[in-house]
Amino acid sequence: MLWLGKAIHNRVHRGSIAHAEELVAMRYLHTMVRITNIEASCKFYGDALGLREVRRREDQKGRYTLVFLAAPGDESAQIELTYNWDPQPYPGGRNFGHIAYAVEDIYATCSRLMEHGVTINRPPRDGKMAFVRSPDRISIELLQMGEALPAREPWISMPNTGEW
Amino acid sequence: MLWLGKAIHNRVHRGSIAHAEELVAMRYLHTMVRITNIEASCKFYGDALGLREVRRREDQKGRYTLVFLAAPGDESAQIELTYNWDPQPYPGGRNFGHIAYAVEDIYATCSRLMEHGVTINRPPRDGKMAFVRSPDRISIELLQMGEALPAREPWISMPNTGEW
Repeated sequence: MLWLGKAIHNRVHRGSIAHAEELVAMRYLHTMVRITNIEASCKFYGDALGLREVRRREDQKGRYTLVFLAAPGDESAQIELTYNWDPQPYPGGRNFGHIAYAVEDIYATCSRLMEHGVTINRPPRDGKMAFVRSPDRISIELLQMGEALPAREPWISMPNTGEW
Repeated sequence: MLWLGKAIHNRVHRGSIAHAEELVAMRYLHTMVRITNIEASCKFYGDALGLREVRRREDQKGRYTLVFLAAPGDESAQIELTYNWDPQPYPGGRNFGHIAYAVEDIYATCSRLMEHGVTINRPPRDGKMAFVRSPDRISIELLQMGEALPAREPWISMPNTGEW
């Protein structure tokens, strides 16, 4: 249970604890989004964005499929796609903002997204930040790891498109 | 850069790569949600849910405050709260589902949430799963780490409340 990290060092017997909130270990699992098309979503999150499928579960009784994806080498933090076999419209809301990933080369990631037909809503003109949207309009933020890359074309001249 | 994990082992010189998507490292950073009240949100995500604030940034020019929280010992996977100083209503949408955390003792976590006035929308009757909502109605899933806890009161008799 490596992920318990520092929390485990603070763990003591429950009976003697006044402030239980300091001692109960937690771990981030995933952010779940609903999708209307598995193929389109796996193309976006997988082929285009660069995540990898780590687990899939079909529930015949509940009539839904769950697909879990994660960044290669960072499998503990996942995104869960829920596909109901009888999908309804899934409009967006403003209380949710976006899901963010750091990427090693923001230009390479944005180029790959474009090759897969994804609009770069907020191009990385600054070599640092970009936003795209999933097929179901979930906003994804991309941040360059470390220092911003030197600004360069075609990104410098690429205008914003829509909202993100 | 420990988090690069296995990805770093696969990295080779760009010039020789046919499948760049296999080689560009990524890392999950955060899920961002918009909030209408910093104090209420920090009470919910911090005191009640058990996350800890790891970073805060105020932007005077943009008139917003960002608060980053994470599970103790799992600081690399964060939640970002965006508070615009001139907040608008932030209705929810169905394309976003929830944010999920594994917890060491789901009963202890739900008890603490209740002590802070949070309704357990889906109580952990099964010793395994619960759902609550943030003050801005972001759905949070709690999952018991490992095996389900033995079912026990008051959870067994606690009905569902609302949606989640």
